[in-house]
Amino acid sequence: MSATAQLDRSIIESIVRQIVLSQNGSAAKASPQVAGQESKPNLVVSISARHCHLTDEHVEVLFGPGAKLIPEKPLYQDGFYAAEQTVMVVGPRRRMLPTVRVLGPTRPFSQVELAFTDSISLGIDAPVRHSGNIQGTPGCVLVGPKGVVELSEGVIRAARHVHMNNRDAELYGVKNGDFMKLRIESPQSTVVFEDLLVRADATSKLEVHIDTDEGNACYLDGATKVELLKQKDGCKCQH
Amino acid sequence: MSATAQLDRSIIESIVRQIVLSQNGSAAKASPQVAGQESKPNLVVSISARHCHLTDEHVEVLFGPGAKLIPEKPLYQDGFYAAEQTVMVVGPRRRMLPTVRVLGPTRPFSQVELAFTDSISLGIDAPVRHSGNIQGTPGCVLVGPKGVVELSEGVIRAARHVHMNNRDAELYGVKNGDFMKLRIESPQSTVVFEDLLVRADATSKLEVHIDTDEGNACYLDGATKVELLKQKDGCKCQH
Repeated sequence: MSATAQLDRSIIESIVRQIVLSQNGSAAKASPQVAGQESKPNLVVSISARHCHLTDEHVEVLFGPGAKLIPEKPLYQDGFYAAEQTVMVVGPRRRMLPTVRVLGPTRPFSQVELAFTDSISLGIDAPVRHSGNIQGTPGCVLVGPKGVVELSEGVIRAARHVHMNNRDAELYGVKNGDFMKLRIESPQSTVVFEDLLVRADATSKLEVHIDTDEGNACYLDGATKVELLKQKDGCKCQH
Repeated sequence: MSATAQLDRSIIESIVRQIVLSQNGSAAKASPQVAGQESKPNLVVSISARHCHLTDEHVEVLFGPGAKLIPEKPLYQDGFYAAEQTVMVVGPRRRMLPTVRVLGPTRPFSQVELAFTDSISLGIDAPVRHSGNIQGTPGCVLVGPKGVVELSEGVIRAARHVHMNNRDAELYGVKNGDFMKLRIESPQSTVVFEDLLVRADATSKLEVHIDTDEGNACYLDGATKVELLKQKDGCKCQH
């Protein structure tokens, strides 16, 4: 089996990696407004494998006139999906990632989200940015079966974040734009991720998005406990 | 350039990734026995890219009768080096990593250390183990220019650890076999790694070893501060 086929397989496998665990105890204690009153909802932690978002126009350039994204697998957030379509991402010096999944629906701008491992492999120095904040980021070339798109910017490492609805935000005592911490307890691989941006709105489901490097660093597949913690409150220690 | 050549290049690049930063303040405060008296030594944090250790016998099988490892690049710990030699690591279902660096000197057993990203790509479910503790771990096939070795066990994800000498250990208030925490502060990617095993002896230099997934998860290359912290002491928060 070729190296290309290996990469392809690992993308497909990793795009569905996700755990759902209940959070016990400690986070609730740190939030006086909910102590002992409402239990925390189950927490979904999802690993986003490398992927891209495309505009309607770029879908047609890459996959042919009139082409639309074809949903293959629904994502946890309602209305979002992994498409059947993939593109090749080409970086400088002719290095490339052969099979990068397209996520739908389409967006007003095209964007490629890589883990650092991917970006090192591709030879692109992808900055850590929140989705949509792509000004001044590196570009790349996207190759589809019917055409090629040259992006002048849009290659990022997506910064870790947590989606939630406003009721969840109230429960945690945070608001949209705040930062939280995510602690993943797993055998010999426990990690606390700081700098987790809260993206709260009226309808999102509670879900953390981390990338494959982060998911592998904390051995998410073997995790025994997850905790969503406020960045500062209740913490008297050196963190 | 082929995908194989890309992987090769990323190994070579990543084998030298390392940062050295001074630790300011907080760790010292947590250790009463050193407060205000001795400052913490500079801390070297090294990313160990995927690599293998070989026995003398396996070096001869893979590279030919009489072959010895040839030092190419010294590692931070005295006497250790990245060898010129690399091997191909083949997993089940004929997936492979074409170029895995051999580290020297030779050892009484052969062992392959992968990040989870590597092990997923290879199709091997590598358990998190400390070096040398390989009983019951998966095996693999090593292919060299002159021969092939089938390992019945020895494929692991190396558990994160910190080398230090006994004087450093005293300074931190820990002993060989204890666990510490490593906090890496970097832009939008700050991480606290728990479960960091202390390997203290008479002569080692102070150095943390993490793997490429961990190094990429915390954006080590962009780190602005590193702290080595005791696992429990001085911590009143929910960690």
